[in-house]
Amino acid sequence: MSSSDVDVDVVVVGGGLSGLCAARRLMDAGASVRVLEARDRVGGRTWSKEIGGATFDVGGQWIGPGQHRLAALTSELGITTFPTFDEGKKVLDLDGSISEYRSQIPNISIPALLQMQAALTLLDRQQKLVSARNPLGAANADELDKATLDSFRRKFVKLKSVNGLLDVAVRVIFGAEAGEIGLLYFLAYLNAGGGLLKLAEIRGGAQQDRFVEGAQSVSKRLAAKLGDAVVLSAPVSHVRQRDGGVSVVSAKGTVRARRCIVAVPPALAGRIEYEPMLPGRRDQLTQRMPMGNTVKVLCTYKEAFWRQRGYSGEVVSTTGPMSVVFDNTSHDGKVPMLLGFVVAKHARGWSELPAERRRALVSDSLVRYFGKDAADIDELVEQDWSTEAYSRGCPVGVLGPGSYNACGDALREPVGAIHWAGTETATEWTGYLEGAIQAGERAADEVVAALGSARRGT
Amino acid sequence: MSSSDVDVDVVVVGGGLSGLCAARRLMDAGASVRVLEARDRVGGRTWSKEIGGATFDVGGQWIGPGQHRLAALTSELGITTFPTFDEGKKVLDLDGSISEYRSQIPNISIPALLQMQAALTLLDRQQKLVSARNPLGAANADELDKATLDSFRRKFVKLKSVNGLLDVAVRVIFGAEAGEIGLLYFLAYLNAGGGLLKLAEIRGGAQQDRFVEGAQSVSKRLAAKLGDAVVLSAPVSHVRQRDGGVSVVSAKGTVRARRCIVAVPPALAGRIEYEPMLPGRRDQLTQRMPMGNTVKVLCTYKEAFWRQRGYSGEVVSTTGPMSVVFDNTSHDGKVPMLLGFVVAKHARGWSELPAERRRALVSDSLVRYFGKDAADIDELVEQDWSTEAYSRGCPVGVLGPGSYNACGDALREPVGAIHWAGTETATEWTGYLEGAIQAGERAADEVVAALGSARRGT
Repeated sequence: MSSSDVDVDVVVVGGGLSGLCAARRLMDAGASVRVLEARDRVGGRTWSKEIGGATFDVGGQWIGPGQHRLAALTSELGITTFPTFDEGKKVLDLDGSISEYRSQIPNISIPALLQMQAALTLLDRQQKLVSARNPLGAANADELDKATLDSFRRKFVKLKSVNGLLDVAVRVIFGAEAGEIGLLYFLAYLNAGGGLLKLAEIRGGAQQDRFVEGAQSVSKRLAAKLGDAVVLSAPVSHVRQRDGGVSVVSAKGTVRARRCIVAVPPALAGRIEYEPMLPGRRDQLTQRMPMGNTVKVLCTYKEAFWRQRGYSGEVVSTTGPMSVVFDNTSHDGKVPMLLGFVVAKHARGWSELPAERRRALVSDSLVRYFGKDAADIDELVEQDWSTEAYSRGCPVGVLGPGSYNACGDALREPVGAIHWAGTETATEWTGYLEGAIQAGERAADEVVAALGSARRGT
Repeated sequence: MSSSDVDVDVVVVGGGLSGLCAARRLMDAGASVRVLEARDRVGGRTWSKEIGGATFDVGGQWIGPGQHRLAALTSELGITTFPTFDEGKKVLDLDGSISEYRSQIPNISIPALLQMQAALTLLDRQQKLVSARNPLGAANADELDKATLDSFRRKFVKLKSVNGLLDVAVRVIFGAEAGEIGLLYFLAYLNAGGGLLKLAEIRGGAQQDRFVEGAQSVSKRLAAKLGDAVVLSAPVSHVRQRDGGVSVVSAKGTVRARRCIVAVPPALAGRIEYEPMLPGRRDQLTQRMPMGNTVKVLCTYKEAFWRQRGYSGEVVSTTGPMSVVFDNTSHDGKVPMLLGFVVAKHARGWSELPAERRRALVSDSLVRYFGKDAADIDELVEQDWSTEAYSRGCPVGVLGPGSYNACGDALREPVGAIHWAGTETATEWTGYLEGAIQAGERAADEVVAALGSARRGT
């Protein structure tokens, strides 16, 4: 036993927001906890960096209405928000044809608008029938699970422009293509967040507000409160269950505990060695929930020239490589920034292109949208989450067709003393920071109940 | 540097048939080789055991016409074959309704037969348009990749009985459901093996002959020829590329080499740590090619009572839990056996059922097919490949819809000094022993060419 070996009530694998929230709830309940984080930082898929003298997020960054756990937690931690800038003209790039519009409604043809509205209404009706808590309990779960989002929407969306706009929304939300996503998973995901529009929009939606201190500050401040309980640079290699307890081996020694919460996405959880091996269904889940592909591209400018010309900075593009662009200027206006998302098919192989080629592709797109001033990028920062060993993609793990039936019930089902957290396991706002909190707290509650039962000898 | 550290030309990760064939070809070309096998045995998804005094395969076991590499290799190694028994009546279990038939043609209604024939003809025409060497080069690759096999066949197969029979074939061939399988992957797989009927049938098909010595004997005898080059119980944890060379860390020390061949399925290859990390596309592939689910159920009997009553032992069942049954009696007839396949949806969670319950389900099915004598099972041996840490499923890794476009080109593309083998990377008989050989030899040829270029200083 190495000097760093310890005994605690609960060991948490993963110091992202979900694991940290689980740890805090457990400590509040009187349990001793150790959080093992593979990276040299907490926060997982949130990561804030200094760019041009201000704090920006190269990972998750938004908070929206209905995310009440995140609102309460950030308020408690003294973290402040400000609205995502969205005043002015928006740009639509429909297969290379550029136009501008002002309302929430893109300037596509009337038939296209009607078809889009019908599609949104149908998807909304469908998602309400698929509970995020129990998708397999939906009346026609078998049929929904066999379909992809693409095969489903083909039945009622016939216009290329409407398909293109739906593709953009899906790419940005999942980092995946409509043809890869299982319909049952998709509907449950919408259900967890309150519908497609809520997930896609700024005002009233999931992109409504940003954090002055950066989104990673939530995890950083939480970790500071947890103190020595959080161990960094401790990638976990083995989780061993024995005699009703757990022994977790990391680069920083072995932690023995009565219970374990694994708070990383299934695709990463599958890379840990479990002894005894997990049941086939659970192992299958880890083979079947690939991470989406997202590259964030942050471009600073000397001036927010687009604002001066009446642009909000928002772009929706079916062309790519950036599917959407936002104004991402710092809260005080001092560091003007445009933020682009290279996602799904556009993200694959992106980082294998030469850096100059990537820069040219980004710059040329922005010039097409906002004019030649857009070429004067001051600093360009890219974050490709598929090349992060301890994320392997972003924003979220995605289930293909058939996978819910194959192994979806293994998503949250504890295996002996091992419980599962991480935003993929959330039943509210799956894939979002809010989901990470909800999942962490739910896993902690499971463990508290289990430890309580053990104490009472029941 | 530990005493077990060595320097060789090529290190091969995985001592299945593919890795061993790669190693032999490399050694024949004059290269020094080390094969690192995680298990305490070679052969991967082939595994022969003594049951009732004879040798049986709990993994892959057949050889069929057109598998010329396997035929040549087994002949060279002195391994003998015998025909799979298929004389007599066959049993069809269509949603619980049992009937018998004698020809290759199941006794379904005439409209169903016509629809089945039309479906097979259409699938055959389609598979000829998708080259196994380059599926993404097919004319409509994008559209094919978006579809699942299920969404495609719904367009032309309307009868429940026909869908049920197709489901059985697909379950047994892939260990997966039609709704999970990407159509482009499916067609390329058929193309690699010469069509669906060839993959599904006994006589003239991939199940035509068995090995007297068991299928694992191929790998065992190959390994014996390779001698000290094969290291058992050496699971690989790290593959490091540095200065144009490779350093591979296993439980048995570090091997340094000029090139590396990883000869394990993508789902397992993804559990190795690579330094530097592999490109996002390659990493995505490892997240997106889950192993199929197959449980082999071997039942020995005192007598081959079914033969005495004119049964061939073959069953095709849309009911399950066994989708197909074969007569699997030992070559000399001394150990009568029925072999059942619990596959795809029936396999998931199978091993979590109590052993008595599993035995009862198997026994009750066989009694329904062959009468009450079938209850007198002498010995029952099950092999659930999803619980094997160094396979994680069987028979093969399966790509869902969209995955070929996302990362299919990473399947065989070398990454620096790392090359990829394993039957998943085969372009002939993908998923079969023949494919394992072809893939291993192809990877070896890549490495020989690369080493030759390096020697010539080009």
